[in-house]
Amino acid sequence: MERIGVGLIGTGFMGKCHAMAYGAVRAVYGDVPVIDRVALCDVEAGHAAKSASAWGFARSTTDWRDLLADPSIDLISITSPNGLHREMAVAALEAGKHVWCEKPMALTMADAQAMTDAAARSGKGTALGYAYLQNPALQEARRLIAEGAIGTPFDFRGSVDEDYMADPALPWSWRLKAKEAGLGTLGDLTVHLISLARTLMGEIASLTAMVDTVHVERPLPQGGTAQVENDDIAHALVRFASGARGTMTSSRIAHGRKNGLRVEVHGSKGMLWLDNERMNELNLYIAEGPPESRGFRRILSGPLHGDYARLCPAPGHGLGFNELKVIELAELVKAIRGEPSRSIGFAEGLKIEATIHAFARSAETGLWVKTG
Amino acid sequence: MERIGVGLIGTGFMGKCHAMAYGAVRAVYGDVPVIDRVALCDVEAGHAAKSASAWGFARSTTDWRDLLADPSIDLISITSPNGLHREMAVAALEAGKHVWCEKPMALTMADAQAMTDAAARSGKGTALGYAYLQNPALQEARRLIAEGAIGTPFDFRGSVDEDYMADPALPWSWRLKAKEAGLGTLGDLTVHLISLARTLMGEIASLTAMVDTVHVERPLPQGGTAQVENDDIAHALVRFASGARGTMTSSRIAHGRKNGLRVEVHGSKGMLWLDNERMNELNLYIAEGPPESRGFRRILSGPLHGDYARLCPAPGHGLGFNELKVIELAELVKAIRGEPSRSIGFAEGLKIEATIHAFARSAETGLWVKTG
Amino acid sequence: MERIGVGLIGTGFMGKCHAMAYGAVRAVYGDVPVIDRVALCDVEAGHAAKSASAWGFARSTTDWRDLLADPSIDLISITSPNGLHREMAVAALEAGKHVWCEKPMALTMADAQAMTDAAARSGKGTALGYAYLQNPALQEARRLIAEGAIGTPFDFRGSVDEDYMADPALPWSWRLKAKEAGLGTLGDLTVHLISLARTLMGEIASLTAMVDTVHVERPLPQGGTAQVENDDIAHALVRFASGARGTMTSSRIAHGRKNGLRVEVHGSKGMLWLDNERMNELNLYIAEGPPESRGFRRILSGPLHGDYARLCPAPGHGLGFNELKVIELAELVKAIRGEPSRSIGFAEGLKIEATIHAFARSAETGLWVKTG
Amino acid sequence: MERIGVGLIGTGFMGKCHAMAYGAVRAVYGDVPVIDRVALCDVEAGHAAKSASAWGFARSTTDWRDLLADPSIDLISITSPNGLHREMAVAALEAGKHVWCEKPMALTMADAQAMTDAAARSGKGTALGYAYLQNPALQEARRLIAEGAIGTPFDFRGSVDEDYMADPALPWSWRLKAKEAGLGTLGDLTVHLISLARTLMGEIASLTAMVDTVHVERPLPQGGTAQVENDDIAHALVRFASGARGTMTSSRIAHGRKNGLRVEVHGSKGMLWLDNERMNELNLYIAEGPPESRGFRRILSGPLHGDYARLCPAPGHGLGFNELKVIELAELVKAIRGEPSRSIGFAEGLKIEATIHAFARSAETGLWVKTG
Repeated sequence: MERIGVGLIGTGFMGKCHAMAYGAVRAVYGDVPVIDRVALCDVEAGHAAKSASAWGFARSTTDWRDLLADPSIDLISITSPNGLHREMAVAALEAGKHVWCEKPMALTMADAQAMTDAAARSGKGTALGYAYLQNPALQEARRLIAEGAIGTPFDFRGSVDEDYMADPALPWSWRLKAKEAGLGTLGDLTVHLISLARTLMGEIASLTAMVDTVHVERPLPQGGTAQVENDDIAHALVRFASGARGTMTSSRIAHGRKNGLRVEVHGSKGMLWLDNERMNELNLYIAEGPPESRGFRRILSGPLHGDYARLCPAPGHGLGFNELKVIELAELVKAIRGEPSRSIGFAEGLKIEATIHAFARSAETGLWVKTG
Repeated sequence: MERIGVGLIGTGFMGKCHAMAYGAVRAVYGDVPVIDRVALCDVEAGHAAKSASAWGFARSTTDWRDLLADPSIDLISITSPNGLHREMAVAALEAGKHVWCEKPMALTMADAQAMTDAAARSGKGTALGYAYLQNPALQEARRLIAEGAIGTPFDFRGSVDEDYMADPALPWSWRLKAKEAGLGTLGDLTVHLISLARTLMGEIASLTAMVDTVHVERPLPQGGTAQVENDDIAHALVRFASGARGTMTSSRIAHGRKNGLRVEVHGSKGMLWLDNERMNELNLYIAEGPPESRGFRRILSGPLHGDYARLCPAPGHGLGFNELKVIELAELVKAIRGEPSRSIGFAEGLKIEATIHAFARSAETGLWVKTG
Repeated sequence: MERIGVGLIGTGFMGKCHAMAYGAVRAVYGDVPVIDRVALCDVEAGHAAKSASAWGFARSTTDWRDLLADPSIDLISITSPNGLHREMAVAALEAGKHVWCEKPMALTMADAQAMTDAAARSGKGTALGYAYLQNPALQEARRLIAEGAIGTPFDFRGSVDEDYMADPALPWSWRLKAKEAGLGTLGDLTVHLISLARTLMGEIASLTAMVDTVHVERPLPQGGTAQVENDDIAHALVRFASGARGTMTSSRIAHGRKNGLRVEVHGSKGMLWLDNERMNELNLYIAEGPPESRGFRRILSGPLHGDYARLCPAPGHGLGFNELKVIELAELVKAIRGEPSRSIGFAEGLKIEATIHAFARSAETGLWVKTG
Repeated sequence: MERIGVGLIGTGFMGKCHAMAYGAVRAVYGDVPVIDRVALCDVEAGHAAKSASAWGFARSTTDWRDLLADPSIDLISITSPNGLHREMAVAALEAGKHVWCEKPMALTMADAQAMTDAAARSGKGTALGYAYLQNPALQEARRLIAEGAIGTPFDFRGSVDEDYMADPALPWSWRLKAKEAGLGTLGDLTVHLISLARTLMGEIASLTAMVDTVHVERPLPQGGTAQVENDDIAHALVRFASGARGTMTSSRIAHGRKNGLRVEVHGSKGMLWLDNERMNELNLYIAEGPPESRGFRRILSGPLHGDYARLCPAPGHGLGFNELKVIELAELVKAIRGEPSRSIGFAEGLKIEATIHAFARSAETGLWVKTG
């Protein structure tokens, strides 16, 4: 029986997500290999052991290079801080492992490029954590656009807003330091928006952006304050290669938004929009039928949409965020098997990274820049 | 290390749900025993084997009594047709197994009573599939009511509507036959509504109901039509033991509703409502603060609500239906361990069954009836 | 040029509504007669004079019988307390005037019957203040049902909830005294719900109801408390003459609801619902077209719906409550001219009154009663 | 008794709106002068006469200069095509009349400047048709921001979308010709968005914009096609004088949007947003109180908000678009009387015009421009 041995680095939010996905994917899909949870790595030994036991991993370690040396491991999950992605991913690929890495790829374009080069050299499967792309409602939106249901898409409105840094009194942390965390909202949130924009609208050709730190300093635990070194807010006007246009707004200081990733596509025959805070809904307007009965339709996700049926046969029952990671893993398995896949591999991820760095570049000069 | 051996009967929608919950619960909660998926039963051998392999069960069988005879199995999942629940559940309990059984309990009150008696005699843990009760948004509603946030609750409005039988051209099937399927909407849907009503409002004392079959016959596959023998629609006025009152409506022929379970509680200081089609939202109005700023608050589920944090640390990311079954299983594990639990055991389930049978009784006479 | 002379009794909320409608109706419709605002009556002379001046009435009086004696007045608006409706309406009709009277008709069935008899004897036009029926979104719903867009309507869910008495600390007033105010929620709110139910579903044949006073006493301004003598809450199961069924709920103590009149009609091909708090929207689901694209459509009111175009040529711009009274008046003018009209005349209003009294009767016995 | 004589130019959508407002304002407010509808002008004599009769004007004319010569007229309404605004407004002001003119002011900045100069020289009251500013929900939003309820506002998201030109098959008309109609979406829609942005956020300091014609040619009635000469879409990044920032998007080709004017203000303590398609609602999030109960509050307009109470004493009953024009007129009356007023006079309107021209300028160069 086909088998994939997996090693997991990291035991935070995303580490647990990956672990749950590994435990679920074969039950959900049936036709994927047995997932053998070989080993889990965390810097703290006791925590590593406890997580390994709870999450069904056979052993634990505090040295991530152990996982690379283990021949029974085929796939490495990297859910460590972003600054470690490059070293780990390149080493894993060079050790002949497939890699499932959380986003953003890395702190710099150079690092992201190095990861992409390593992936190309290795020929191994890679996937980045753009789980929202796997949402059946989003997949249905993509299908509708591809089939021409809303005609030619010519305008895109996207926003991604959360409030995890909204309170100005939240203390300073390493996540606000450029060298350790890289970009702020751009790396944490805007990348998701770009991934959706590219999926629905195609390549972004150019943009002009405005990137700001609003809460410029934050209190230190020991008293006093420290400078915030990365961005709170990032807005842009964009032009797509198709000739379409649009806007993107992002904020990590948007009070009240918990997972406010919203996209809206205007086409010549209709419009559609989605909001991640209601991730099981797709809103669709098509300019046909009796004019007096036209309106936006709220379509509840169901087994006719994307991979929903693999998780649930009943419409309207709703999928959750964790289940998107299961679909993401199933797509990576396809990539590993050499099958067509919706995975966002490193080559595709590099284009997303290039776009957030284009935001930053444009914001410095106030000029339109190419994203490529 | 603590361990629970499980056997699963049935491989349909709910069978897969139970299987996924078994695979996930320890990863989610950490502090539950290892779940050992011992054996799975389906009447068709090939299907049983394939499901066992995909869902991580060590072996499969076509004889459910095999599971009862296996000393390594502690807990039996019953997800077979409702008409089989009694025989299986009683036998499992008598074999010293804990039982996780889907709702409704049984076709008749006598069967439900027999199951309840068997559970009492055995002293084993039992849980019925009232997963919506485990929704963190619902748990938060319950907490708010218990804390008096909306004052004394005096009025309840509940509805449960789906459209799986809405098309009058849908063919006749055994599910529409009283002897094989028992009650219709009452058994499939109204029981959920009653479970929520009891959780939020307490015991139902009496009711007057209206129960109807609207699409009285349905086409047979071979031509001709057959009578529909159970209810499409069930509405009632109810009085709670607390003195509160309310209404309940249910329909399996409600076009457009996919999981339309909606409850609304009116209190002396405020109101709250929830709708399962947006299961990660709780709507709350409290009559305090500046009058000009009062309004219903849409609260997104997050780690401060119910067991949400066990599944996800990020608010607004959303849980799915399948994850409610994981929480349900965690509650059953608590019951098995003798800890306080929100499980709906057979004794509690019997009260729900009594209520739907009270609906049926009242509908025949047009009189108010006691539900006890 | 055709002309209608009008006299207005009362200067409260509804008095001002009538006055504004008189001032607007010809500008809105063009093809209605000139409305000549002849005289206005209020018990307090100064207030009457001031209101007459502001609202464009030529003169004022403190004696409502003055209006009846004035031959230049053709139409009397009655917006006085409900207990005065009978005397005023009967006298006005006997004086040969048309009558526009606010709802509910009267305190008792006998009074309502007397008014209806007087109207029949006089042959004059009568209209009751059921303005919500004139909402273009509701008119469109009615049209869709009549055209069969949702198939055969078989289930109705209606509720009407406001919170004007929700605070238990609100003081006692004459409106809570049976002899002076008549029924409570039934007369204030339930009548509206019944008017919509009848418009969309036809005659109500029978019902069983539950009518309660929840806040049984209220503080007196001078200290102490007094008994509340009429109903806070009224719920019912209903059967329509068509064979359809449904539920109705009403409350004047529903925190958070400001104009919560909501109706939902389930049909064999689809469903529609409306909520007065979003009165410019109609929600429609039709079970046709690609199953994966089905959902409730939110249709914004526009010039294709009802009389909307008379008030505004632009869709989505929204009408307000006051404008429904303008449409109501235009319908009364049609009735006066002997044209087909959607006015709720006294004969139709009597059936609504009979229904609320059937609620009260049923609530006393707990039995199903006929509404006729 | 105080009196204002009025003359109305134009009988289209806005002409009728002004007429209805003249008929209603004194009934609504009580304390405004008697409005004497002296004369109405339309180029077609029969239509002028008919409209005058229906709308309550004493006489009609086909020559707008007649109105200027009439000493009994104090106030002129200009609702003619935009290209005529300058000539009419300047002449009216020079004739000593107050002016109520629809937006946009004029086709060019030079014309708008000339109008503003004439207004300044005359000392007369002027008001432009920015009725959405008078919406009580918007007034409440403004009040909340001014009081600091959401802290320091630092981010603005605005969009204004309609679909009146969305169908690419809609025929070419003079409204698409630059010389006759001026700007497209910028003049029709974006001006409204700017008026709201300025009201909520203060002066716009600079912007960078993207302005496009998407449907570049449209069919001619006689066959063939003609070029569209003005803009379909206009998007911008903006910086406010306060240091806040934001985005603005506009489209007249946005399928499904009927009155999609939406603004969102992010502050350091909370957020609020409004959507004109639900103009009687204000959505407010304040980061205070128990974290588990935080959420966006949907506040229904009521008598505690703005001028709502003048039109209706009952919350949730809803105002309509036409009633905003009544409030707009009441504000102009205040300006005429020399009282503090929320009217958007010509001087303020000129700043709005300057902003849309800044959009156009920036779009040509791709550079940030100052709006002043």
